[in-house]
Amino acid sequence: MEIRAALLGFGNVGSAIARLAARQPRSASHTIRIVGALVRHSAHRKHADVPLTSNPAALLDAGPDVLIEVLGGLEPARTIVLEALSRRIPVVTANKTLLAEHGAELSQAAVRGGVPLYYEASVIAGVPFLGTLARRPLTSTVTALTGIVNGTSNYVLSQVNRGADLGSALADAQRQGFAEPDPSKDVDGIDAAEKLAVLLQQFAQLGVRPREIEIGGIEGLTAADFAPARRFGGTLKPVVHAEWSNTTWSGFVGPAFVTWGNPLAALKGTANGISLRSVSGDLLFAGPGAGPDVTAATVLDDVLEAVANPRTPDSCRHRTITQIPLSTKWFVRLTSTASLPDGADLADLLGSYGVWVQQTSSTEAQHGKDARWLLTYACTRHRIERALAAVSAASTCSAFLIRALEAPSE
Amino acid sequence: MEIRAALLGFGNVGSAIARLAARQPRSASHTIRIVGALVRHSAHRKHADVPLTSNPAALLDAGPDVLIEVLGGLEPARTIVLEALSRRIPVVTANKTLLAEHGAELSQAAVRGGVPLYYEASVIAGVPFLGTLARRPLTSTVTALTGIVNGTSNYVLSQVNRGADLGSALADAQRQGFAEPDPSKDVDGIDAAEKLAVLLQQFAQLGVRPREIEIGGIEGLTAADFAPARRFGGTLKPVVHAEWSNTTWSGFVGPAFVTWGNPLAALKGTANGISLRSVSGDLLFAGPGAGPDVTAATVLDDVLEAVANPRTPDSCRHRTITQIPLSTKWFVRLTSTASLPDGADLADLLGSYGVWVQQTSSTEAQHGKDARWLLTYACTRHRIERALAAVSAASTCSAFLIRALEAPSE
Repeated sequence: MEIRAALLGFGNVGSAIARLAARQPRSASHTIRIVGALVRHSAHRKHADVPLTSNPAALLDAGPDVLIEVLGGLEPARTIVLEALSRRIPVVTANKTLLAEHGAELSQAAVRGGVPLYYEASVIAGVPFLGTLARRPLTSTVTALTGIVNGTSNYVLSQVNRGADLGSALADAQRQGFAEPDPSKDVDGIDAAEKLAVLLQQFAQLGVRPREIEIGGIEGLTAADFAPARRFGGTLKPVVHAEWSNTTWSGFVGPAFVTWGNPLAALKGTANGISLRSVSGDLLFAGPGAGPDVTAATVLDDVLEAVANPRTPDSCRHRTITQIPLSTKWFVRLTSTASLPDGADLADLLGSYGVWVQQTSSTEAQHGKDARWLLTYACTRHRIERALAAVSAASTCSAFLIRALEAPSE
Repeated sequence: MEIRAALLGFGNVGSAIARLAARQPRSASHTIRIVGALVRHSAHRKHADVPLTSNPAALLDAGPDVLIEVLGGLEPARTIVLEALSRRIPVVTANKTLLAEHGAELSQAAVRGGVPLYYEASVIAGVPFLGTLARRPLTSTVTALTGIVNGTSNYVLSQVNRGADLGSALADAQRQGFAEPDPSKDVDGIDAAEKLAVLLQQFAQLGVRPREIEIGGIEGLTAADFAPARRFGGTLKPVVHAEWSNTTWSGFVGPAFVTWGNPLAALKGTANGISLRSVSGDLLFAGPGAGPDVTAATVLDDVLEAVANPRTPDSCRHRTITQIPLSTKWFVRLTSTASLPDGADLADLLGSYGVWVQQTSSTEAQHGKDARWLLTYACTRHRIERALAAVSAASTCSAFLIRALEAPSE
């Protein structure tokens, strides 16, 4: 059977989808043909096999079996996807920005149209788990998740770990083609926060906008931070984390200290992964997180499923529950430590604010200044910031801090 | 909608399935009712909610929507499952022994009946990936796999690593309820080989019987082996591994040295995991591998999918291709080393047989005898055994060897 798919967007990912569709074996039970693609200025571009148009209505009027959306961004993607769903055309999208902001609206439209809305490529593009768990309610009863969902940040931090500075690691990632020309959404954590919002919609039935999430970028970290991390028994990774109950949730996006016992610590380079805490144990899904060919394969698998195994979203109602402060361990760098009290006195000072020190590094040089690193026991951000403000007030030292996570079973 | 399921087997797993089915929220879109269960002697047993019978025909004559098979073993499971499929009753099974021996026959029966045959709980029970990848042809184009698929062995080796001997670690596993009363299939590698056969059916379309696979048990390992493993940059894990092309395949089951860079090295306790090498990168699925409650949840998710998302197996033709010798690194323990030539001379002797030494430990005591450990570069089993036979002939030392795997990206 031939599946006729229309494509919104014909950039790197769109072209990869067209190439992969053209390469399918004729013997497959279903083959996918790209019957048209939306581009901004069709007059300027031609493609040998795929008719290009700048008119979205013409694309939908041709009655494709599936609409594939890889435009990115909010508009015109949102309007065209809603129109397709209202015409009962199944939609496959890789657009986490759109899903993070308008996931509920799109799901409602899919339910009304009685057609699938699949988005496996939006989070950890190469590893199918979102669609799977949507169909498997007993396995998908989870109460917390931790993941590495931005390959560019993971690659950059891996390079910083090897001694590179952030700027050159980023330039390197751009040369190799997996960082965007403007990588600020990757580095700042915005991209990861959009993916966390998509994950919270699915696993916590929670409507959270990316801007409501505590977001930290990776730019404050340096190569010198990795040696004390190793001595504390772990490394530094760009993570997303959230946990929830029936009435409250908490979470964050940002670089974090992760112990070696945590399987996410072993994900190197551009690899992505997610750990889901369920009643029966921790489930881990990991693999390639992005790249035009990986995304194209996942999008076309979604197209095949949308036709061969159609499933309309179950529910589009997202809960609104209270966000509460997240308590974690903290990985702290104190710079210009000459005027700092020594170990025991510093621990006493922090302890007087309710922050308890688990491990301390000896004083080391960082960018020509003396620095010392601490790993604390769990407390809220408010508490550690108050304690560190007191330390700064009592000395000339400045503090930099990120959260620290334990392995699920530790 | 209520799904009426018949159950073959009412032991630990069968009872857990009945309990979990009874606990489902009434609000779910589908609920599952266990309408009867097959037990060996129904006269001796009673159950408040589930009618028990020793007559399989009566169970099928009642026309259940789905048959759940958790009897284990080959017969009568095979005959009843085939009968159900011929009556067009979808089947969900957790029985890897049955699938390993008769997977092709069962798939053919499912294709003929036009009904689903789902077996997600047969390998890494808690983590759905078999059904997912069966539906997603572009993601499931893999050429090699490595996994930890036996939780009892993983637990026992983790305990041996902490200093326990094998017997007490096994007794401990039995006390905690995750080792069978007769754990020989776990310890000998038979259980893992059955699961590898199921994986090869799905991912390599390969009909391989467990007895055709190189199988090693974990019983030869001792606590003393873990220290040199750590110094070589890894640990010892019970693994399955296979790789294949269009014309050949090779693989093994057994304990192996695994480097820390391999995400499987981080799977502790009873955790299971599998790494699939695909064109787009390495995919990892990990989580709880067994236990009555985990298996029950996965079986019931399969039941829901069999009704809401039925999918008949695509193909039941398994290839028969040549098995070729597998070349890997080797982790070798040499005991009673007093008469052994020293480092360089030993390396020369092994080298003269085409075995090249990558790392050597210093001599240490093991069970009161001197022992030395080597990590070699890759070669076939035939080559290393010939080289070690020459070493033993030239001295009084005895050799113990297991394979060594590198991380996918190393």
